[in-house]
Amino acid sequence: MFSVVVALIIVVSISYVNGSNNNVCIPTSKQKNTTNILADLRREMKNVGIGIYIVFSDDEHGSEYTQSYDKRRDWITGFRGSSGVALISLQTAALWTDSRYFIQAEEELDCTNWILMKSGNSGVPNIVTWLVTEANQTTLPPGGTTVFISSSWWSSANTALAKIGKQLQPVDDLVGRIWSDNERPKESQKPIVQHDIKYAGENVTEKLVRTTTELKYARVQATIISALDEIAWQFNLRGADIPYNPFFKSYAIIYTNYNVHQPELFVNLAQLNSSIYPIGVKVFNYTMFWSHLNATVTDPTIQKIWISNRVSQAIRSLIPENRLKLPLSNSPIKQIKSHKNLVERQGMRDCQIRDAIARMKHIGWIEKQLNNGISINETESIDQLITFQKQQNKFQFPSFQAISASGNRAAIVHYSSKPATARLITKNEIYLLDAGSQYLDCTTDITRTHHFGTPKDLEKRAYTRVLQGVLDIADAVFPKRTYGRSLDYLGRMHLYRDGMIYGHSTGHGIGHFLSVHEGPQRIGSNYDPYERPLDDGMFLSDEPGFYKANDFGIRIENNMEVVMTNKSIYDNTQFLRFNTITLIPYEHSLIDVSLLTTAQYNAINQYHMKVAAILEPLLKDDEAALKALRSRTAKLELQPTMTSKPLNKAPNTNNSFLIIFIVSYIILF
Amino acid sequence: MFSVVVALIIVVSISYVNGSNNNVCIPTSKQKNTTNILADLRREMKNVGIGIYIVFSDDEHGSEYTQSYDKRRDWITGFRGSSGVALISLQTAALWTDSRYFIQAEEELDCTNWILMKSGNSGVPNIVTWLVTEANQTTLPPGGTTVFISSSWWSSANTALAKIGKQLQPVDDLVGRIWSDNERPKESQKPIVQHDIKYAGENVTEKLVRTTTELKYARVQATIISALDEIAWQFNLRGADIPYNPFFKSYAIIYTNYNVHQPELFVNLAQLNSSIYPIGVKVFNYTMFWSHLNATVTDPTIQKIWISNRVSQAIRSLIPENRLKLPLSNSPIKQIKSHKNLVERQGMRDCQIRDAIARMKHIGWIEKQLNNGISINETESIDQLITFQKQQNKFQFPSFQAISASGNRAAIVHYSSKPATARLITKNEIYLLDAGSQYLDCTTDITRTHHFGTPKDLEKRAYTRVLQGVLDIADAVFPKRTYGRSLDYLGRMHLYRDGMIYGHSTGHGIGHFLSVHEGPQRIGSNYDPYERPLDDGMFLSDEPGFYKANDFGIRIENNMEVVMTNKSIYDNTQFLRFNTITLIPYEHSLIDVSLLTTAQYNAINQYHMKVAAILEPLLKDDEAALKALRSRTAKLELQPTMTSKPLNKAPNTNNSFLIIFIVSYIILF
Repeated sequence: MFSVVVALIIVVSISYVNGSNNNVCIPTSKQKNTTNILADLRREMKNVGIGIYIVFSDDEHGSEYTQSYDKRRDWITGFRGSSGVALISLQTAALWTDSRYFIQAEEELDCTNWILMKSGNSGVPNIVTWLVTEANQTTLPPGGTTVFISSSWWSSANTALAKIGKQLQPVDDLVGRIWSDNERPKESQKPIVQHDIKYAGENVTEKLVRTTTELKYARVQATIISALDEIAWQFNLRGADIPYNPFFKSYAIIYTNYNVHQPELFVNLAQLNSSIYPIGVKVFNYTMFWSHLNATVTDPTIQKIWISNRVSQAIRSLIPENRLKLPLSNSPIKQIKSHKNLVERQGMRDCQIRDAIARMKHIGWIEKQLNNGISINETESIDQLITFQKQQNKFQFPSFQAISASGNRAAIVHYSSKPATARLITKNEIYLLDAGSQYLDCTTDITRTHHFGTPKDLEKRAYTRVLQGVLDIADAVFPKRTYGRSLDYLGRMHLYRDGMIYGHSTGHGIGHFLSVHEGPQRIGSNYDPYERPLDDGMFLSDEPGFYKANDFGIRIENNMEVVMTNKSIYDNTQFLRFNTITLIPYEHSLIDVSLLTTAQYNAINQYHMKVAAILEPLLKDDEAALKALRSRTAKLELQPTMTSKPLNKAPNTNNSFLIIFIVSYIILF
Repeated sequence: MFSVVVALIIVVSISYVNGSNNNVCIPTSKQKNTTNILADLRREMKNVGIGIYIVFSDDEHGSEYTQSYDKRRDWITGFRGSSGVALISLQTAALWTDSRYFIQAEEELDCTNWILMKSGNSGVPNIVTWLVTEANQTTLPPGGTTVFISSSWWSSANTALAKIGKQLQPVDDLVGRIWSDNERPKESQKPIVQHDIKYAGENVTEKLVRTTTELKYARVQATIISALDEIAWQFNLRGADIPYNPFFKSYAIIYTNYNVHQPELFVNLAQLNSSIYPIGVKVFNYTMFWSHLNATVTDPTIQKIWISNRVSQAIRSLIPENRLKLPLSNSPIKQIKSHKNLVERQGMRDCQIRDAIARMKHIGWIEKQLNNGISINETESIDQLITFQKQQNKFQFPSFQAISASGNRAAIVHYSSKPATARLITKNEIYLLDAGSQYLDCTTDITRTHHFGTPKDLEKRAYTRVLQGVLDIADAVFPKRTYGRSLDYLGRMHLYRDGMIYGHSTGHGIGHFLSVHEGPQRIGSNYDPYERPLDDGMFLSDEPGFYKANDFGIRIENNMEVVMTNKSIYDNTQFLRFNTITLIPYEHSLIDVSLLTTAQYNAINQYHMKVAAILEPLLKDDEAALKALRSRTAKLELQPTMTSKPLNKAPNTNNSFLIIFIVSYIILF
């Protein structure tokens, strides 16, 4: 699944002058009546003395996904898309969302009470511009609940408000006040479990040594951790509070002298059995975090504290500026955990085989059903995939809601199929499947675009252009300290020759039984000050695409690890390259061989040889899957104008390495 | 010539802890005795009440090259390299320079009085760190002369000094005070001349419309211009105050309502004949700038002023913060003039033919001399090149000091040959020639690496890897708004496969009878906040390289223009590509065909066909040049494993376009 975080920031920051859009309001049965909710909310706003209230989709931890209990913005607006910001003044209420959700927002948002702001559309003001305009007309100051708002957004909004002499007021969770217990979903109470050392590869103390070494190096005495994936990694614990992510609500404070001043972990004690309290760690109830943070901030032995650029304004506002490590940067754990240890790396590779088996069984099943004239739609396809994934060893749950898109739906980059409106998968159209899994020993995120009949020429051409990008990214060799943004063009350049573009980034970092999107590495064209260079042991997706509106969409997504290659014999520079770990064949019928370079042609054949060698023995009991595998891994027909000379052969892809590689895979499985 | 500006900033900002280096001082006859100068300078420092004085190489305009009159830093240190910063306290004196100048600085710097700080070497503190340490031990505050120091450096130094409660004091030009008239070179009095509209393509009023449109759009009422190339461009004037650049010392103030409030140009009136005063422009003496700037700053109708991020601290400090367009950015003219008009573009293309003729005559001459057993050294080679260049129509002078490097000297990226130590050019070694010209209708900057005998395998391999980078950069297709930094990897990736790297950027912008280095476009891997995207009508160099210390060096440098190509049929995205305008063949004997892709192989042959078709008729009277041309443009031998299929053919490179292109060139010449 592509990452849209940075792209969104750009879209949202575009400023327009003409005011809001003028959609006609057509209330539908899908729209919730929010009249009473808004009345209650405005009463609470007056009670706390604010005239404007801002509600983001975030929980206290800036999580990409949130639990139902935290879906405040959904509840007050009716709109259930994952991305949206609500701004309520005493007179108006407006919701901002991006192009991925325009249709859904039109369907779900209570249009009699709310204005839909289509971010990025001409004439649509950005949130801060609108906030300033509204604040200028309102006597009471604007406000927000600081635990749910990032410190960076809070600062930038205040900079803009300062020009009219106003500032945001921190207020209580006003939605929480009016959301009655019988209407509000219960907060997750699911037990936290230990993440076994055989998967984690390092115990908590070993990880503490790595983290506190970074703290020492940065000359700080403590760090405050609020990102849920970082806490899960640091303490070798996993939870189930949030869909698709093995996380549990928590905070942590880690002190540089961890032997004397033990790390403090704050969780709902009812979720964590004391028998699995991490060794050397003090465990407190979740609600105790704030008083401990206060104690840390006033501790005279703690001069400097490291917080991430992504913490909530609630945390930042408690720490005096002169005690902060400035400028804000990535958290120390984000950087450390992105370099996976050898056990994590092995897990990431191993479970790609299991995911590939499930995917091949699924493709075989689809082809069999279609051949037997049995219809399958997009959501049935996902259900069947999950059935196959659940048969795999160590499988836990999907790592995100699968994008299962047939025909023109594949052109919608963030398409989400629903049973009632799911489109049939047929032999006449493209079928795009972007799905990932959480295993105990890894996280995956894989996209394949299929065609079960005879594709059109343009579909073949686009697929091949996308595939050339995938291959050229995977084939890159680069010195240490290279940023992913320097490689991004490789994923796009073949598409550009045909005037084709894609709007998302080319790759994102991937966690290890953690989040499917993690930094600080990425492959994208835009500059991100928090991006860090590619390095040994990082994992990333490689996912160029092309989307022809209302017609079809193509995306191919592999997972790769960054590995060391030889040092330069000239100046000892350490070079790196990628190793593609995904093992699912490309769609033979969609490849136009005449577009390929000799190097690309050879790379596809070699990949298919490897995939076939690994998967055939493991699929021998599934005839349909074997058939699907064999038809796709057959050698590409040689174009008369091509030769077998491997131009620009990548390091370590000769046959002896390939054989060793295949044998190790089979032994390890 | 490669641009090192940004690389230097990085090197200089690296901070070390161990203090200065410990070179043994061996005074040589090349070293100037600066004892008296330092005594005089320290007396003046005490007179104005400062304990530390900083002397940059800059003139008032931040020029890349300066006239002898402005070489204050050279005069007080004895060191004549173009890059260096001197810091004099009452006790010590230190000079910082970068690795390009370590040897020269050791030879020239008066080591009995000065410490040489080798920027980037382990243990060498950066200037600001040293400044803070010295300032901490000195009662009198540190100071500098604000007209010669950039506002950005001044700010960053003050931020560091604030931590010890100190700030830089602005003081008079202390070197100017002690530099006696009979010792100091005279200030340039060379006449300013009009730059003919037939070369400029636009008159001053038309350019004013473009500039003031930008000012209007940015909602400012005035801009202050201090960069000499921008003033020369804006007013269609050229001078000769500075070596290699057709510039004259000047400032300008341009008001948004230029019809009412005419632009003000400040020059040495003795240099500008009133008959060529630009129409609609008020001309004042250079020294009047400061009082006019003061009047502008206090004019109540001028609320906001646009200054460039590169102006001197003297200018910035005169403008109240609330009147500045913040954050500081490129000047409006920098952006406008980078998009060359159609006449400028034609000039840039045309004079490449003239430069190619001079270069081919020069290569022919070298080969003939070598064949006749007549020895040529590096500086004799430059002299002969200039003789051939001077024969060309509209030639003015070189655009920089040519890098003429034989054998292992070619491994020194910024090598500067001297008659006394010039190395012979032979048939056994690489010969690298990086030279450029100023013509009335363009500026050029071209590097070719030659071998006049039989090169070694590694030389061939490195040359071919460099050439592959040159070709792949030139072959790029990309949408509007793409930054050069996204393409940089293309220049390096083939070298990386062999563990080869180069430390400079891949390309820099080129002026039109202006500076050989101009922004805001570039092709480099590092992030530069002032870089702007590539766009139609921009010109850049394309110059990958490889340098094997003490052995040999390779660089190939073409000049290219950015041109529009088709819009996307899918979403109307405007695509761009490069057009290589340099017309000098590659070194046939240094190309290892077995490394090339089919596309690269075809691109070289097509380029050589074009070069031969254009140059042969123009060199028909020079047998040696013709021979040199023919041997280099002969079709590359076909490797048995290669085919003639043009994979990934670039747009508009088919034969009918090629023929039209060649014919137009010949007609236009």
